[in-house]
Amino acid sequence: MQFTGPAEDRAAIRELMETYADAASRIDKAQWLDCWAPDATWTTSHAEVRGHEALSRTWDDLFTRMDAMMFFAMPGAIQVDGDTAKGRCHVREIARIEGKVMKFAARYDDEFIRHDGRWRFARRTYAMNIAE
Amino acid sequence: MQFTGPAEDRAAIRELMETYADAASRIDKAQWLDCWAPDATWTTSHAEVRGHEALSRTWDDLFTRMDAMMFFAMPGAIQVDGDTAKGRCHVREIARIEGKVMKFAARYDDEFIRHDGRWRFARRTYAMNIAE
Amino acid sequence: MQFTGPAEDRAAIRELMETYADAASRIDKAQWLDCWAPDATWTTSHAEVRGHEALSRTWDDLFTRMDAMMFFAMPGAIQVDGDTAKGRCHVREIARIEGKVMKFAARYDDEFIRHDGRWRFARRTYAMNIAE
Repeated sequence: MQFTGPAEDRAAIRELMETYADAASRIDKAQWLDCWAPDATWTTSHAEVRGHEALSRTWDDLFTRMDAMMFFAMPGAIQVDGDTAKGRCHVREIARIEGKVMKFAARYDDEFIRHDGRWRFARRTYAMNIAE
Repeated sequence: MQFTGPAEDRAAIRELMETYADAASRIDKAQWLDCWAPDATWTTSHAEVRGHEALSRTWDDLFTRMDAMMFFAMPGAIQVDGDTAKGRCHVREIARIEGKVMKFAARYDDEFIRHDGRWRFARRTYAMNIAE
Repeated sequence: MQFTGPAEDRAAIRELMETYADAASRIDKAQWLDCWAPDATWTTSHAEVRGHEALSRTWDDLFTRMDAMMFFAMPGAIQVDGDTAKGRCHVREIARIEGKVMKFAARYDDEFIRHDGRWRFARRTYAMNIAE
């Protein structure tokens, strides 16, 4: 089973994935940072960064040349176990960078942690699927 | 928090966004109109229309030259407060218009109202993000 | 109403649609097959196949030349009636086939069955919407 655990937690984690997507689509750095646990780790093909300060710098690097972004997210798995969870998130990113539209289909392998009753990302590992 | 309020209402509003997307993707005007409250307002860059009669005419104008449409919706926020709610919905529209495929990434800023136990759109404000 | 029946069943069927999409996006045949009831029927414009053995052969045919696939799913309707359900699922498929990217917007008309407490597809009927 790809989706396991209490219904309310599965719904909250789905909404966290969408809150992250909403922040990226509106280029809202504060909302995006708030999706991550304080010591969260983000791994991409380029780098691995840890903690809000490093995440913030990585965001700045990525979005410097970005005119606009659409970030669609669909959960592929959400498995809740108490106050931690694992999951997968498929994303469709359409970005206009210095006037040129680029498109990516990619996947996040995710770990979540609940802190003060609220779910956040403890780790996201990005894997490119199809780049255009 | 981007998603707040009772779980059953958040689920129902998500499904309303999808019912609207389903209607657009199947070019089903009756189902689309039924998603709107009777005196709902739809604001786009072109116009602001209010009420089912005006919405119906706008649909007719938009879909006259439309051969096919795919309308994907993803909630970015749903905030329920009693019998009203606010939200955001990111959409990916792929339309074949007189044989030519056009693509849009856009955002709706939404207001919802519950009437007779059922959620509908009270207001949708459309903002283009990326047009191809 | 496009979405009817118990909330937990609507959520489980949404997750089944996503489990199928996750399997296709990761080219995971075992997970994909497991989404289908044993005697399920899959109807496409090319053929109608029934049962896991025939589904397995059809998967092999489809994925022989596939380098990568992104399969996004959005429910358009989920109507639960006891241990059976009907629904619609809109899909965005982006495939890299022998190095070339092809894109499809399509729709599934679905029937579901609950067996041993778990929902699976009893029938999926595929209709192409927009092909690029």
